[in-house]
Amino acid sequence: MICRLLAATALLLAAIPADAAKTLIVNANGYTMDSAGNLRRFSTLFVGDDGKVLAIMPRGTVEPKLVAGDFRLDAKGRTLIPGLIDAHGHIMALGLQLRSLDLTATTSLADAQTKIAAYAAKDTSAGWIRGGGWNQVSWGLGRMPTAAELDAAYAARPVWLSRVDGHAGWANTAALKVAGITKATKDPAGGRILRDAAGNPTGVLIDAAMDLVEKAAPPPSAGEREKALEAALAHLASVGLTGVHDMGSSAEDWALFRTFGDEGRLTLRITAYAAGMPAMEAISPLRPTPWLYNGRLKLQGIKLMADGALGSRGAWLLKPYSDEPGTRGLQFLDDAKMKNLFSRANYLGYQVAVHAIGDAANRQALDAFTEIRPAYSDKFRNRIEHAQVIDPADIPRFAELNIIASVQPTHATSDKAMAADRLGEARLTGAYAWATLRKAGVKLALGSDFPVEPANPFYGLHAAVTRQDRQNQPPGGWRPEDALTLQQAFAGFTTDAAWAGGQDGKAGQLTEGSFADFLLLDRDPFTIGPAELPQVVVEETWLDGKRVYVKPAK
Amino acid sequence: MICRLLAATALLLAAIPADAAKTLIVNANGYTMDSAGNLRRFSTLFVGDDGKVLAIMPRGTVEPKLVAGDFRLDAKGRTLIPGLIDAHGHIMALGLQLRSLDLTATTSLADAQTKIAAYAAKDTSAGWIRGGGWNQVSWGLGRMPTAAELDAAYAARPVWLSRVDGHAGWANTAALKVAGITKATKDPAGGRILRDAAGNPTGVLIDAAMDLVEKAAPPPSAGEREKALEAALAHLASVGLTGVHDMGSSAEDWALFRTFGDEGRLTLRITAYAAGMPAMEAISPLRPTPWLYNGRLKLQGIKLMADGALGSRGAWLLKPYSDEPGTRGLQFLDDAKMKNLFSRANYLGYQVAVHAIGDAANRQALDAFTEIRPAYSDKFRNRIEHAQVIDPADIPRFAELNIIASVQPTHATSDKAMAADRLGEARLTGAYAWATLRKAGVKLALGSDFPVEPANPFYGLHAAVTRQDRQNQPPGGWRPEDALTLQQAFAGFTTDAAWAGGQDGKAGQLTEGSFADFLLLDRDPFTIGPAELPQVVVEETWLDGKRVYVKPAK
Repeated sequence: MICRLLAATALLLAAIPADAAKTLIVNANGYTMDSAGNLRRFSTLFVGDDGKVLAIMPRGTVEPKLVAGDFRLDAKGRTLIPGLIDAHGHIMALGLQLRSLDLTATTSLADAQTKIAAYAAKDTSAGWIRGGGWNQVSWGLGRMPTAAELDAAYAARPVWLSRVDGHAGWANTAALKVAGITKATKDPAGGRILRDAAGNPTGVLIDAAMDLVEKAAPPPSAGEREKALEAALAHLASVGLTGVHDMGSSAEDWALFRTFGDEGRLTLRITAYAAGMPAMEAISPLRPTPWLYNGRLKLQGIKLMADGALGSRGAWLLKPYSDEPGTRGLQFLDDAKMKNLFSRANYLGYQVAVHAIGDAANRQALDAFTEIRPAYSDKFRNRIEHAQVIDPADIPRFAELNIIASVQPTHATSDKAMAADRLGEARLTGAYAWATLRKAGVKLALGSDFPVEPANPFYGLHAAVTRQDRQNQPPGGWRPEDALTLQQAFAGFTTDAAWAGGQDGKAGQLTEGSFADFLLLDRDPFTIGPAELPQVVVEETWLDGKRVYVKPAK
Repeated sequence: MICRLLAATALLLAAIPADAAKTLIVNANGYTMDSAGNLRRFSTLFVGDDGKVLAIMPRGTVEPKLVAGDFRLDAKGRTLIPGLIDAHGHIMALGLQLRSLDLTATTSLADAQTKIAAYAAKDTSAGWIRGGGWNQVSWGLGRMPTAAELDAAYAARPVWLSRVDGHAGWANTAALKVAGITKATKDPAGGRILRDAAGNPTGVLIDAAMDLVEKAAPPPSAGEREKALEAALAHLASVGLTGVHDMGSSAEDWALFRTFGDEGRLTLRITAYAAGMPAMEAISPLRPTPWLYNGRLKLQGIKLMADGALGSRGAWLLKPYSDEPGTRGLQFLDDAKMKNLFSRANYLGYQVAVHAIGDAANRQALDAFTEIRPAYSDKFRNRIEHAQVIDPADIPRFAELNIIASVQPTHATSDKAMAADRLGEARLTGAYAWATLRKAGVKLALGSDFPVEPANPFYGLHAAVTRQDRQNQPPGGWRPEDALTLQQAFAGFTTDAAWAGGQDGKAGQLTEGSFADFLLLDRDPFTIGPAELPQVVVEETWLDGKRVYVKPAK
């Protein structure tokens, strides 16, 4: 009788669709950090029908029994690691960039003109042609290009192309016209309109002058934004990222993330930080959202900006720039306003993620965290984004105040020459000081700041452990005393990033009960030489025990 | 062996929490419409652990077997009907009104002044005093009230009180001052500032002129809005509504609905219609959302406005108002704009719900639906909200074009005297013409327009079948030839409303596979006299097989 009742139950269970079955991966070369911070090895990964890890097991363990509908994969010895987490990226900006015209590989002005013409011919929208990545230096041009040269490639619609460093833009005549830029237009503060001998704009605009065109350009349509998010998700899965902390989500970004979540298309865990208070108020003004879509989306914190960037001398420094003694950079918030913003964020339950690049901005943020600490800061995992240039005296304060340093290893290797110019050698102590921060007991979270840098987290691992760029420069690494060990860097892109985003114990590790987010790799990052880390290829990306990316066959 | 495996499965099942158990309600006096439009009776309702109806069964059927953890309720003969659906309400406005000063029960200007003074004395916030529900007609005032009369009640802070129909607002001098409304202020398009003989504003603002004050009034805080939604949900459950078509959801409303959905606090099925294109663009610009939270929330359509209301002479009529021959009311959209809005909504997959009260507005909407029909209208359940005054020649066009008439029975019984004044007797043919519409083959959906009218759907059932107000006036009913049968009205608040909101077969009925949303009543609406319908008391409200409201013990 009991057995008959149970038989009826079994019939019901048989109706459960196959996508709710268990998954067993055997014969893997598995690595994970565990919650105690140890690197663990395993051969078998067993995933429940809820997409969570049931167990990891060493080689030689008896395989768990499977039933019809369950899935078994022989990894054939491939390396299996947790899906990686980028603690600082810009998802929509990446997607829009991926879908725009990419001129980074062009070798001459003529080559660029050909690519621009071909791209414009294929683009059937009525909108602007946008793109970037050009570099007159690598073209061997010896000067900036002109609007007339861009018109020669395409003149029918506005074309607007940013330089590889993002600090200059190249417009065609149609774009200049829509933006209303003429001989009479004055250079804005912090920007320059390049002009010919007669004073007419040549077509290239520098820094703040770029806004004149940006303001005139139509924003991407909802349909374009949807395609951009699709492109970003596909790209991020292909480089092995299963989690991103989106630094500065607008209400529009959030609505699109929700659309993808609602429609079951969100193949990434997005820890969202609202683009300031207005975005937070539009998205979830009462309190952070819960984790949505099985841990794939949450409005977790608020992104605030304390200063600008080092390259454009916007980073706010305690002492003048070495290469421009007239300026200390830009302070974005006065002390009272910063403190009020921090305490309001924490009061509502939001984590603070404050962009601070210069040593003055970092000190101001630490001072503000100190002031609000009695009420909030120990309960929150407040974070400083970039924490790029820190006065050595302030480094221990990160640990005392429990402030996460959210750093981007590839920035150091991209910035190394520029940083030395801006700061001077003496001030580099405390700049990109990852090992020093870690030794002081500071929690690090690692990221890329994509699309400013490539999203590929293996580039970040490489930069973190070698302090070299991907041309292996400089020999021995730049200020190698601040390099991380591979295990530290791996934690920075897994468990430590998860901790910074409030998914510790859930994401970034493969232990009982955690999300079964993992990668199958073409080589073992723990045994190859560090110089080879950028060459690691992600062959498969899995999220919640489901495959979301497979490397296309050649 | 098999039996042992099954036993392990049974152990797993035993761990399912009690709230996922089956529910059996026996000994009920059950009614439901079925998908074929028949009224069915039943005694037993059996609900699965997914909150959906497994079966309804007549008296004498052998009870299904339950297991430990399942729930059995003896209804003791009480009447059980599907949860009712209001096809036209304003959820946030109701909530804010429930928490603001309510003047609907005031019987004279003096009575209102006393209540305003008492409320203002109790309100300890620093903000505006807001409220509504006043009606100079029911006060027997014979004219609109003035700012000076409001100052006499309270002058220290701005006071802003909307008329019962929402189409006029009454400001005190402080509110006029903050809004900057003076003799020099021009009437905005679509609105009117009432003035004295000298041209000075008297304090009452009509339709679009209300925006002048609304723009100046501080919006309710996020915390106030949360409390308002809590209040609205509690009230709606207490009157037996398990579904509402929210007519004009803002992006802010939507974010709050999602917060409640995300937090598991949404005790109502909300079919949301965005407040125009800008709200749609902010909420879900690509396409309608899917049904969220197990059928509890969807952005389904777009609410558009073709004209104003009859009471304030904003309804757009084919011929002049009988009691003000100088005006035909207000046209809100030109023909091309209306057609473009309709076709854009349908193109994106959204249902159109267009407010049209006057016969000119109804004709314009029908003309626009005719124009877009080749592309869209048969695929969509486009609807005209109110459909209040229709030229008799246009009535068959609703059926030809498959346009739903979304009508509010209590409007007729509240408006009857005013409507005769505004329209004249001859033009009442085609006004509030529910039976005439139905006979012409038009689909009706019934609602209340709360908070303009009370949300209690039993008031609507009563008005629909009696054409009398709740004082049983006029004897025999007002234009009783347009009364509905109780079964027709019941369908209008259940299956027909569900159809209009895209939940047909799911909500509004208790048949296999539908949501187990139901009410236990203190009496049987199908056997009591129609005059007793407003006295029906909801004792329990259930949603998805879970109790969300129980009448408090006295």
